[in-house]
Amino acid sequence: MSNKNKLDLPTSLSKNSSMRLDLWTWKEVEKYLVNCKGIILPIGSTEQHGPTGAIGTDAMTAEAVAREVGIRTGVLVTPTQPYGMAEHHLGFPGTMSLRSSTLQKLIHDLLISLVMHGFQRIFIINGHGGNIASIKAAFSEVYNTASSRHLPVAKSLRFKLANWFMSPEVFRQARALYGEREGQHATPSEIALTLHLEPSLLAKQSELPDPAPAGPIYTYKDFRQRYPDGRMGSDPFLAKAEDGEMFLDKAASALSNDLIDFLKET
Amino acid sequence: MSNKNKLDLPTSLSKNSSMRLDLWTWKEVEKYLVNCKGIILPIGSTEQHGPTGAIGTDAMTAEAVAREVGIRTGVLVTPTQPYGMAEHHLGFPGTMSLRSSTLQKLIHDLLISLVMHGFQRIFIINGHGGNIASIKAAFSEVYNTASSRHLPVAKSLRFKLANWFMSPEVFRQARALYGEREGQHATPSEIALTLHLEPSLLAKQSELPDPAPAGPIYTYKDFRQRYPDGRMGSDPFLAKAEDGEMFLDKAASALSNDLIDFLKET
Amino acid sequence: MSNKNKLDLPTSLSKNSSMRLDLWTWKEVEKYLVNCKGIILPIGSTEQHGPTGAIGTDAMTAEAVAREVGIRTGVLVTPTQPYGMAEHHLGFPGTMSLRSSTLQKLIHDLLISLVMHGFQRIFIINGHGGNIASIKAAFSEVYNTASSRHLPVAKSLRFKLANWFMSPEVFRQARALYGEREGQHATPSEIALTLHLEPSLLAKQSELPDPAPAGPIYTYKDFRQRYPDGRMGSDPFLAKAEDGEMFLDKAASALSNDLIDFLKET
Amino acid sequence: MSNKNKLDLPTSLSKNSSMRLDLWTWKEVEKYLVNCKGIILPIGSTEQHGPTGAIGTDAMTAEAVAREVGIRTGVLVTPTQPYGMAEHHLGFPGTMSLRSSTLQKLIHDLLISLVMHGFQRIFIINGHGGNIASIKAAFSEVYNTASSRHLPVAKSLRFKLANWFMSPEVFRQARALYGEREGQHATPSEIALTLHLEPSLLAKQSELPDPAPAGPIYTYKDFRQRYPDGRMGSDPFLAKAEDGEMFLDKAASALSNDLIDFLKET
Amino acid sequence: MSNKNKLDLPTSLSKNSSMRLDLWTWKEVEKYLVNCKGIILPIGSTEQHGPTGAIGTDAMTAEAVAREVGIRTGVLVTPTQPYGMAEHHLGFPGTMSLRSSTLQKLIHDLLISLVMHGFQRIFIINGHGGNIASIKAAFSEVYNTASSRHLPVAKSLRFKLANWFMSPEVFRQARALYGEREGQHATPSEIALTLHLEPSLLAKQSELPDPAPAGPIYTYKDFRQRYPDGRMGSDPFLAKAEDGEMFLDKAASALSNDLIDFLKET
Amino acid sequence: MSNKNKLDLPTSLSKNSSMRLDLWTWKEVEKYLVNCKGIILPIGSTEQHGPTGAIGTDAMTAEAVAREVGIRTGVLVTPTQPYGMAEHHLGFPGTMSLRSSTLQKLIHDLLISLVMHGFQRIFIINGHGGNIASIKAAFSEVYNTASSRHLPVAKSLRFKLANWFMSPEVFRQARALYGEREGQHATPSEIALTLHLEPSLLAKQSELPDPAPAGPIYTYKDFRQRYPDGRMGSDPFLAKAEDGEMFLDKAASALSNDLIDFLKET
Repeated sequence: MSNKNKLDLPTSLSKNSSMRLDLWTWKEVEKYLVNCKGIILPIGSTEQHGPTGAIGTDAMTAEAVAREVGIRTGVLVTPTQPYGMAEHHLGFPGTMSLRSSTLQKLIHDLLISLVMHGFQRIFIINGHGGNIASIKAAFSEVYNTASSRHLPVAKSLRFKLANWFMSPEVFRQARALYGEREGQHATPSEIALTLHLEPSLLAKQSELPDPAPAGPIYTYKDFRQRYPDGRMGSDPFLAKAEDGEMFLDKAASALSNDLIDFLKET
Repeated sequence: MSNKNKLDLPTSLSKNSSMRLDLWTWKEVEKYLVNCKGIILPIGSTEQHGPTGAIGTDAMTAEAVAREVGIRTGVLVTPTQPYGMAEHHLGFPGTMSLRSSTLQKLIHDLLISLVMHGFQRIFIINGHGGNIASIKAAFSEVYNTASSRHLPVAKSLRFKLANWFMSPEVFRQARALYGEREGQHATPSEIALTLHLEPSLLAKQSELPDPAPAGPIYTYKDFRQRYPDGRMGSDPFLAKAEDGEMFLDKAASALSNDLIDFLKET
Repeated sequence: MSNKNKLDLPTSLSKNSSMRLDLWTWKEVEKYLVNCKGIILPIGSTEQHGPTGAIGTDAMTAEAVAREVGIRTGVLVTPTQPYGMAEHHLGFPGTMSLRSSTLQKLIHDLLISLVMHGFQRIFIINGHGGNIASIKAAFSEVYNTASSRHLPVAKSLRFKLANWFMSPEVFRQARALYGEREGQHATPSEIALTLHLEPSLLAKQSELPDPAPAGPIYTYKDFRQRYPDGRMGSDPFLAKAEDGEMFLDKAASALSNDLIDFLKET
Repeated sequence: MSNKNKLDLPTSLSKNSSMRLDLWTWKEVEKYLVNCKGIILPIGSTEQHGPTGAIGTDAMTAEAVAREVGIRTGVLVTPTQPYGMAEHHLGFPGTMSLRSSTLQKLIHDLLISLVMHGFQRIFIINGHGGNIASIKAAFSEVYNTASSRHLPVAKSLRFKLANWFMSPEVFRQARALYGEREGQHATPSEIALTLHLEPSLLAKQSELPDPAPAGPIYTYKDFRQRYPDGRMGSDPFLAKAEDGEMFLDKAASALSNDLIDFLKET
Repeated sequence: MSNKNKLDLPTSLSKNSSMRLDLWTWKEVEKYLVNCKGIILPIGSTEQHGPTGAIGTDAMTAEAVAREVGIRTGVLVTPTQPYGMAEHHLGFPGTMSLRSSTLQKLIHDLLISLVMHGFQRIFIINGHGGNIASIKAAFSEVYNTASSRHLPVAKSLRFKLANWFMSPEVFRQARALYGEREGQHATPSEIALTLHLEPSLLAKQSELPDPAPAGPIYTYKDFRQRYPDGRMGSDPFLAKAEDGEMFLDKAASALSNDLIDFLKET
Repeated sequence: MSNKNKLDLPTSLSKNSSMRLDLWTWKEVEKYLVNCKGIILPIGSTEQHGPTGAIGTDAMTAEAVAREVGIRTGVLVTPTQPYGMAEHHLGFPGTMSLRSSTLQKLIHDLLISLVMHGFQRIFIINGHGGNIASIKAAFSEVYNTASSRHLPVAKSLRFKLANWFMSPEVFRQARALYGEREGQHATPSEIALTLHLEPSLLAKQSELPDPAPAGPIYTYKDFRQRYPDGRMGSDPFLAKAEDGEMFLDKAASALSNDLIDFLKET
């Protein structure tokens, strides 16, 4: 990614080793807002990822992509919300799910907090398909709240959802590497990214029998019966840490472009 | 802390480099549940911590204490919820707050998820005073839900809130080191812990003028006027990274004892 | 559509001129449930459809498709919910919107009602893109409720969302007829269907200036400014009633197949 | 009804064959609002109406009355909300009920939508006794919202509930025709109106044994036991389509007068 | 009221000077439940009652009637809920109102508490017209909850609302004493009862100018403009303490009969 | 308490025999607000208090303390909310509990009502430990609402919670009189106060076996098993009415000082 996608920030912020909001002070945020009204909010999920995948896969990957996008673009990144809507995975121990209505309220409150400070363009980097409906539903509620409260920026607010695993570049790469064996859940592409980020996970990988074929999602009990080990048509043992590095680069590149377009949009 | 506080776990779990749920697979959790029904849930906040403190202070510290307690006791640790109830800090840019009602729903859903898997004793390690009321209120709602749904474990459920910064050992140490200058918010003790955990934060520290004296908390606008730079009677520039290491040890030691007592309680 | 997609219903139900639940008695429903656990629920929206389109377009079209699917398949059709999530259209007089959270509760209650009677496969025929996130979010809540209440059918429940305007057959036909001028809102395809259904609407059609190009959707005030007459890149005056008849047939054919597959799914 | 109860509308609206909002464009609504701030919102229910009555009775009748009132008075009529609060009928298959809290939120959102456009006097024509408490409760919530948001029209808002089946003219006529056999639910008067509106329903009518006597309403299980075929003291086979036509006229006449008084009220 | 309306209670309860739950112990309640599943719950409101009426009028009167009914029938009386839905009175200082949705949740929780102990017939004695819709709406929610939780007594539950001021005996007496000057709010009948209960209020009474005529109720701002001193067509200075004593007797007599019928109902 | 803690009120209010809002008229409140923006709101609970304690103990005591503080300080006292959060006592018949979320909404609405009239400093006198978390959580919600609605007084609002039984003076006295036998629930100190207030309760007192020792609080079923007669380490038969009088004086004295400080705070 070239420098053209890098925002110009005042020197006083240059000492930050990263764009992580949690490592900044409020005074640094105050300065940042003079030049940029954009911010990135990563969100994952805490849910089973097959017999060999880490339960934190979706949060780890969303966080890694978001922080890389932050560094490349110079846009601030909030802490990662690690819990999302994973009701259909509750048949597997370790899954921790927010109801969709709770997740919507959480998104609502976080966005309203940012809006109160003057942030106007919020870019959510999401690592979990099950969050999509809730995030979209929440957007309409936040617009409603901002308008109902007559917030001065209400009209200018723009929220955008970016699912890193659905970006065309990532999708094509996954197909190229794994073909049909990419599957739909606990996919080699996301597992690869976690192996790149957390090498200790390598020790948990192993060959697995053929997965249940990908299919529909209904209740969590049906899910467990239909996909007994948690995988939906995927062969995660194909994943390699070096693939993961590539996925991170491709996702960060694609989403950085999307983010810059979003911030430049008039 | 001696080994007596260490739970005996089957060898198959020994390859885990830590007790982090997000790095485990669901099959590992399944095995863990055979021997232990306890789990630790860390929760922080994303809010201003004075002109030199990191916005992520409360999440960073709660996470560090929780993970250390997990390692010492052999009890599983869930991902850290980084957002809490910080409404009164919303006058400072960068603060991201959940309304109390949202936080209660979040706690409710996370605890119910754990209960569905068979966890019966949930130990919340909290890094933020503003979360206390919401967490306690949520406990009663979860007990109600578990009972209303006739969950088999409903009667055996026990939830406990542990605020690491309020444990007597930590409190005494902070008084010994900083006296009255410990203050109430953006305290040297919590800042010290962040310096230990994240050395890059050292570069942000600097001497500060006398803080506004500690006092009551009402609305966020009143808060900003009463405590113009975010500190409540504290001198965070007294903080040293080595103090932080000691606070971590004292907190982990105290909370490990509390946790083991909680798990052994009949 | 051949008869193979027709469910076999007992003779006692044959006197029904249609499959409309609102024209049946409860005793007829009781008999129907002996043979079929499936039902269709149409949902629309009440919102502006450009300067010449009817405000009831989405409800009218969803209802027509649903009733035709009902007749072709022999599956019961509930009344059409005419109000959906149309917050972004509130800048235009006549739009009546449910908040997303309200729509989710409505879907929840209607589905739970059907589940209580023994319906297990519910097929929602939707006429409005803005409803999609809310409907999907609601599904997870209904599964949760059914499971929490230990309903005997909880595990067998299956809900499916079918957006008639997004079925490939319809999409291809619209492209073939109108090319890029199909646009995204107040499209000639949906307007054509309303002209077929309600010939009195013909008198309102007229040539229009070039529409604002299709683009993103944020707040309702931004929407009105961005799309001043309500159209998103569409030329609805291309619509003809005979096109509408064809769209109805194509949509009903595609969705009937989907529904039968859904009911036959094991 | 004489012309004195007809509002004067601009010629540009005269081509509307009816006063149905769903068949209007937003531009027509915009013009309408220049002259009239009143609107009619019909609401019914989808619930059992005895062994021979249509499940959609309450929606069908409310819609017919509302549209007739619209035509007679020149006041705009929104789409009919077909689902209401029918919890006590859930013991009979086919009943689809909103919880009272959901119905209140729905009424709230629809009224707020109308208020945002400038409508100030909203006249709800209701076909179901079970909706009354929810609608009245919702009114207070909408007034609260309008006031909390400082809407300019907040002070001028007026909502009125009109239950067509309780208007004295209708009540007297029903007594005259059916005496005590009118009963309380699945009454000959409402069934008569459906026969007038939907002649196909005639084929479902038949003589019935004596109904359970009218009495109190508690839970839905108690309801089914107390009123085994769904009727409460009524003999719906007395209903004739021509009676229905008369009920429609009487209801429309009475409610048109009420509506005009409501709109003229200072 | 004769003794036939007195329930037979075991001697062990005879030392109670009254039937007030707040003065009983849980052991006494346990014994009571062996013989009687009925209980009375009084509810009032805290709202303006004209320039001379006490703000607590509705709670005071409901409590007095409920306690008298309790003594006459031997049925237990819970504490009086002093706050109700009084949104339309918020234009007058001192009014404290619950939103309708809050009141519904309160009624829900109180009734569920009683149901959990085995109470099956709950008789609400209400002192405020503005509460009626909320209480009725809440009933349907409680029935739903009891059924959803599969409570053993769910099917047998019966709730009844008794508005003391609307009982025919009271109504007739008020008409006889005050004619049209009874009015609709801050009526001489309710004020008379407060004078009987709280003689200190006599000092606040005084003659007043003609009241605004009774009429409709919309927003609280409209209410204050329409009824500038809070009275709706009433002349409360007609009230005498001795009238109040009579109203208490008539109300208690009528409601005791209703309650006994309710408890005896099969 | 000296007169220095007495607010100066206009003569026109001097005829009030007490500071009870429920006995005032709205015109008196209007006058009061000219001089004082403070108000007291008492809240109790309706829950088991051991085998000999009154179920209404917490409401009775909070009310008595609040009214005494009102008289001593000249600050207005609202009606006592008799129902609080007592979920853990639901295993004992007679306990009536609000869910924490309901109690929070109730507190919210009551405080917002007072704020709308211009009250700015609200002092809650609480009689029940189980209410504390809910009340504190509610405070943050009310501040949020007041700010969201741009209420003119939003910034000046201050709410304070005073738990009479936790004031140091009361605590010391209880220790002095009863030592360890004070316990944690159904304590002699609170029972003593009820005996002072309601001498009829004396007849219910009796010696009791040793109580279960004080300990933790989890679910209501666990509570009943752990504390079989409802007491937590307390010997309520030590209570004497004259002790109660002393507790009332000490509590009123301590809280009057706190209240005056609160009102004088700049």
